[in-house]
Amino acid sequence: MNELEFLSGLRQLPLHEGARNLEDDCAVLNFGGEALILTHDMMAEDTHFLPEADMADVAWKLVAMNLSDLAAKGAEPIGMLLGASLGKDDAGFINGLRDALTVYDCPLLGGDTISATGASTFGITAIGRATHLPVPSRKGAKVDDAIYVTGTIGRAMLGFEGQKQHLDAINRPKPLLTEGKALAPVVNAMMDVSDGLLLDGWRMAQASGVTFRLNPELIPVADPARMDECLRWGDDYELIFTASPKLELPIEATRIGTVEEQANAPIYLGGTALIEPGFLGYQHG
Amino acid sequence: MNELEFLSGLRQLPLHEGARNLEDDCAVLNFGGEALILTHDMMAEDTHFLPEADMADVAWKLVAMNLSDLAAKGAEPIGMLLGASLGKDDAGFINGLRDALTVYDCPLLGGDTISATGASTFGITAIGRATHLPVPSRKGAKVDDAIYVTGTIGRAMLGFEGQKQHLDAINRPKPLLTEGKALAPVVNAMMDVSDGLLLDGWRMAQASGVTFRLNPELIPVADPARMDECLRWGDDYELIFTASPKLELPIEATRIGTVEEQANAPIYLGGTALIEPGFLGYQHG
Repeated sequence: MNELEFLSGLRQLPLHEGARNLEDDCAVLNFGGEALILTHDMMAEDTHFLPEADMADVAWKLVAMNLSDLAAKGAEPIGMLLGASLGKDDAGFINGLRDALTVYDCPLLGGDTISATGASTFGITAIGRATHLPVPSRKGAKVDDAIYVTGTIGRAMLGFEGQKQHLDAINRPKPLLTEGKALAPVVNAMMDVSDGLLLDGWRMAQASGVTFRLNPELIPVADPARMDECLRWGDDYELIFTASPKLELPIEATRIGTVEEQANAPIYLGGTALIEPGFLGYQHG
Repeated sequence: MNELEFLSGLRQLPLHEGARNLEDDCAVLNFGGEALILTHDMMAEDTHFLPEADMADVAWKLVAMNLSDLAAKGAEPIGMLLGASLGKDDAGFINGLRDALTVYDCPLLGGDTISATGASTFGITAIGRATHLPVPSRKGAKVDDAIYVTGTIGRAMLGFEGQKQHLDAINRPKPLLTEGKALAPVVNAMMDVSDGLLLDGWRMAQASGVTFRLNPELIPVADPARMDECLRWGDDYELIFTASPKLELPIEATRIGTVEEQANAPIYLGGTALIEPGFLGYQHG
């Protein structure tokens, strides 16, 4: 099965209502009168990092990608559980983990270790606490909302290619926890841009039952000569969100378009209709 | 690093107080006035299951081993997050998952899928709610407590060897959630026997700062002629616990010994002092 087929299979299982039908980046669980936010993301050698990768960076990134999901919910981290294959540069991995847990104040809660015979895999379950109810989701985008993105899209791609000033974006991405928390009370929809701006925007428009009209000239990309690639590369961990166009934003972000009533395609990039998600970004396994 | 070295490294990281210094099977988190119980266990192809294994059984067992950790805390399941490598018999895996989630009323909350190039790995984070405070731990065993174990030890070993009447023990182990919940209010210490009765007993005695005197003639083993092996094999998922010898047990269990003041060894098996944990059971990766 590919990921979509597997996900369809999982959707036939008994699902918790907090699973949001497996259509969001996090589960949202009411517990003891508060909202608990849960997410689980994995990284595998060969698929998500090269065998010769710096394991401290791998650990950092694994924490960051999980915390980025919490950020998109406006959650603050409580702690995390780790699942780890032993046998790579374990000391380096622990060092990167220490860096990330310390910077983002997300202590270790527990986990498991295994000996794997082949490629190593690592997983983190991050636990957070919602700071605002209702918890933002992908599907709240409203017609006439302005569409915004934080930062600059495509930096991770350029870092992956070795450009020095962008290495931090691919090796040590920063989950936008502070920004997510500031935005949660004022956005109508929010998610992180982990798989590419177009693909994640497509998903958000689709989930919200609307169309996103994006103006390519407004989208802040790291290399305008390669805009198409920038918009399709993942790993940027910026936030995309929609809100009333009258809103005074609590953080810096760039308006890149407007939400319209559902048309033939979930996204129009300038005059181009983007109907199918294929080729828009990184589709998982 | 081996698992113990890696664990020592992790203990130097910022730890949540609910991590119980990574010395217990679950994290215990106070949240909104309730106690949330969290655990994460993984299974890897080659290490924990054979490439030709029935993937429905693998999925069942992965759920069961996580829920067994919740059982040892007297917790009831809320839900689980899944991390899965795609590419084995995915439909079979989903079927086994459905069986277990349905039987134990533990709906899916979310998760992640990956494409792995080598052996497949699967992880589950199980989330539960404590039914009794304080939540039982490994370290509460008191001098003069009676030591008990549920069920029969060694069945998983015999099932692994192909004995038909024990196949369920290795392929479809049952997490003792009902038993754990009944025991939580009355035990002084409790854990599940996942790595072998002697090794897990050793850990519990060590954590509690006491000595377990076990009477080998009392221990219910599946094959008395191979008692030594039965006591050292893991995967049984029974519960070992200590309680006042005057207690009327709320469930069926067998008394196998008595807690004594800390002596030279954490365990005496009859007259034999078991000082070091090596060779007592299954030591992880």
